[in-house]
Amino acid sequence: MPVFTLADIAAKIGGTLHGDPEIRISGTAEIDKASAGEITFLANPKYGSHLEKSHAAAVIVDGNSGITPAIPFILCPDAYYGFLQAFLLFNPPRKLLTPGIHPSAVVHETARLGAEACIGANAYVGPGVVIGERTQVFPNCVILDGSQIGSDCILYPLVSIRENCRIGDRVIIHNGAVIGSDGFGFAPYQGAFHKIPQVGIVVIEDDVEIGANVTIDRATMGQTRVRKGVKLDNLVHLAHNVTVGEHTVIVAQTGVAGSTRIGSQVMIGGQVAVAGHISVGDGARIGACSGVSKSVPAGETVFGFVARPIMKTKRIEAVTANLPELLRRVQQLEKKLEALQEKKS
Amino acid sequence: MPVFTLADIAAKIGGTLHGDPEIRISGTAEIDKASAGEITFLANPKYGSHLEKSHAAAVIVDGNSGITPAIPFILCPDAYYGFLQAFLLFNPPRKLLTPGIHPSAVVHETARLGAEACIGANAYVGPGVVIGERTQVFPNCVILDGSQIGSDCILYPLVSIRENCRIGDRVIIHNGAVIGSDGFGFAPYQGAFHKIPQVGIVVIEDDVEIGANVTIDRATMGQTRVRKGVKLDNLVHLAHNVTVGEHTVIVAQTGVAGSTRIGSQVMIGGQVAVAGHISVGDGARIGACSGVSKSVPAGETVFGFVARPIMKTKRIEAVTANLPELLRRVQQLEKKLEALQEKKS
Amino acid sequence: MPVFTLADIAAKIGGTLHGDPEIRISGTAEIDKASAGEITFLANPKYGSHLEKSHAAAVIVDGNSGITPAIPFILCPDAYYGFLQAFLLFNPPRKLLTPGIHPSAVVHETARLGAEACIGANAYVGPGVVIGERTQVFPNCVILDGSQIGSDCILYPLVSIRENCRIGDRVIIHNGAVIGSDGFGFAPYQGAFHKIPQVGIVVIEDDVEIGANVTIDRATMGQTRVRKGVKLDNLVHLAHNVTVGEHTVIVAQTGVAGSTRIGSQVMIGGQVAVAGHISVGDGARIGACSGVSKSVPAGETVFGFVARPIMKTKRIEAVTANLPELLRRVQQLEKKLEALQEKKS
Repeated sequence: MPVFTLADIAAKIGGTLHGDPEIRISGTAEIDKASAGEITFLANPKYGSHLEKSHAAAVIVDGNSGITPAIPFILCPDAYYGFLQAFLLFNPPRKLLTPGIHPSAVVHETARLGAEACIGANAYVGPGVVIGERTQVFPNCVILDGSQIGSDCILYPLVSIRENCRIGDRVIIHNGAVIGSDGFGFAPYQGAFHKIPQVGIVVIEDDVEIGANVTIDRATMGQTRVRKGVKLDNLVHLAHNVTVGEHTVIVAQTGVAGSTRIGSQVMIGGQVAVAGHISVGDGARIGACSGVSKSVPAGETVFGFVARPIMKTKRIEAVTANLPELLRRVQQLEKKLEALQEKKS
Repeated sequence: MPVFTLADIAAKIGGTLHGDPEIRISGTAEIDKASAGEITFLANPKYGSHLEKSHAAAVIVDGNSGITPAIPFILCPDAYYGFLQAFLLFNPPRKLLTPGIHPSAVVHETARLGAEACIGANAYVGPGVVIGERTQVFPNCVILDGSQIGSDCILYPLVSIRENCRIGDRVIIHNGAVIGSDGFGFAPYQGAFHKIPQVGIVVIEDDVEIGANVTIDRATMGQTRVRKGVKLDNLVHLAHNVTVGEHTVIVAQTGVAGSTRIGSQVMIGGQVAVAGHISVGDGARIGACSGVSKSVPAGETVFGFVARPIMKTKRIEAVTANLPELLRRVQQLEKKLEALQEKKS
Repeated sequence: MPVFTLADIAAKIGGTLHGDPEIRISGTAEIDKASAGEITFLANPKYGSHLEKSHAAAVIVDGNSGITPAIPFILCPDAYYGFLQAFLLFNPPRKLLTPGIHPSAVVHETARLGAEACIGANAYVGPGVVIGERTQVFPNCVILDGSQIGSDCILYPLVSIRENCRIGDRVIIHNGAVIGSDGFGFAPYQGAFHKIPQVGIVVIEDDVEIGANVTIDRATMGQTRVRKGVKLDNLVHLAHNVTVGEHTVIVAQTGVAGSTRIGSQVMIGGQVAVAGHISVGDGARIGACSGVSKSVPAGETVFGFVARPIMKTKRIEAVTANLPELLRRVQQLEKKLEALQEKKS
């Protein structure tokens, strides 16, 4: 582990240092786990009491906690984000590949590689492929004809990219993910299904992260598009012609059917199913396991199968939980009413 | 883009041409997007008005629309299927591989390859494997001992096929799909689970398409069988000893548990779970996200969790949506009845 | 097929032989399918009548059936487990790979391989990797820097293991499974999501089986841990920092969110979603398709979306099935009460 001074860390974070700049810090840790010599962070004022007992040598804070620490501290706009920068200082990304083409890789003579691009063992890079500077293609990846990949990307082992797709800068794709497989489109005719050629592509913009064994189908025509900053967890499926807006997050095993448009800054939980040809507005949230069959307005939070505004689902759910009791009440009403009617007659 | 005459297109479609056979057509497009020189189609009479405004040079129609176009037209049995044939004329499948064995591929000396079969870079073809004519095995695919693959198949990158499986003609398998992994079978004994050997195989018949990262397990004994013309979307899971009947379509992320028999011409939506040891009859339909725990009769449409005949699910769903209101009505009944009883006593 | 004497089989099973030890057995079969010369088993007394009609030459029984067969038999503690041992005698695991490193594989000079380890074609074994004796790494697998794999493991084609993971002995990993991909962790800051480095590892203990295209994420810090004897079916997802206890079984397409602790001897059905930061107690059972948002006590059986104790779910479900009828009863009550009130006034 390297050692940094508090001044080094403040510079990295872009924060204001309060305390001795020469204090030597040996690592990062959570507030209740920090040992002497480590730096921690305080984002939530309710953990203020932990700070008094902490063994940390220094703490990263922001204006939100309203606390002025007794120990040396760095003030920055967002304590957790600042801490993440400090963590990265101590844990810089480790490069596992060496620049250049591994002798066992197959790179077509018409492919163009940027400076310091790494092509791992047994990888395949097809005709006309363009790979940007410092991008790492791990062993056994396959990139077919004409696809373009930006700079500083990481393609972990066994990622495959079909022909003519376009991938931006700083994109991370985890093992086994598939970009550009054919969309699922067939024309029924005389009792059989006939393949509709899928001649579109997939475009992945900058700063996207794609989980392990994700599948993103190419468009029938045009583009399936994943916009800047989107994060997709493992085993997510995006069908043909789907658009996912900027900085949207989709948790594991969720599927989005064809031509649906997901807005920006949307949060979708795990194992959600989103129907085709609908839209999910900017900033919407969809709870885990929901089945979304209709468009969701911007800013709305929906949940359930079938998905409804979350408060409505919760109210329904509360009654559902007591349905056997509700049935008994109706049975009792029927008996009482009958008794009343009998008396009457 | 190539250019064809209207006569070329009529011949390809097998339709009857009404208009000048020498008209030169430069491409295909939807009715509202076609430019001069393009051919479009009209399948649904309600888009008839679009035809009047369309810039298309010609249109493909069938008897269903009841419209006789003012522009040159080709009459055929199914306008959309005809249009698909025209589209294929302009967009013939592009061959990305060259026939023969890439020098980096490993093909066992006992494997037999048909004429013009293509084995891509870093692929592995094991002992006794048979691969038919013109079949394309993309880079980094793995085909283990004794498996047989028919003619004109496409195995996209990173497809793997375990030993002794059989695959028909014109089968398309997308990236990362797994054929013939062990079924999930264990015998509990003394607090642990002991593997039951899975000594069966997988048989995939002709004209099947299998999506990216699909998994199809081999049978415990006998066969897991996917019949002619079946289409499986991405991330579908078929367990050991499942049978899927001819021309059945299964949408993404659906799973079918062990020994279940799915009939022919069945449509199963995305993220459906079908229990083991049941059957789904011919022509049945299962709505997306359903959980099917009991056999489904032929021709039935089921939906929901738990799956029920769709009209029943819809009626239940309508009451569920108003459960809080139903609860209030019961509460009101209780109050009124109590009031009535008090007056009475 | 080899032939064994009844004495051979009794020795393999560790059972007591009743009958001629020299009888030659040619194979194993189920009780109603056995031909002359085959051995079968009887675990459940209700199939006792099948035994009388069976053509089997001998039968494996245990004390539970309470039946003393008229044909030669082997008595052992568990008839089905005994039969499984006999089956394995006739169907020994077939070794598809030959010991040593295939010439096309890339094995770093600092990797250490145990005796008779097999590294298949086009596989990659990175710096510092340790692989135990007799472990089989199939073609196109990728094992990154510093990962350790025990003895007698099988890594089927296209399995990938990220850096520094640890895998025990006798672990079976099916095609396309991913071990050690980054956990899904991001810090929101200024409208974007910033990657939290995932510096932990995955530890897989002895005798685990992992299905095709499963994904197991590495821990943010510390370990994602899959304990001894766990069986994971295809397309299961385990998020960062999850722990799965000994001899737990998880069926296909189930996902477990971050930091959740699953106990030992738990059974989880297919397509279940388990929320993050909860625990599932030892011996609990979770029905297929359930959505588990709260911790489950040890020994409890839960089911449904949302998951509840199964008897509660069944009672709710019974009322739900008749909700339209319940609504009609409430409507009738309202009418009758109104009529009563009118008479009264």
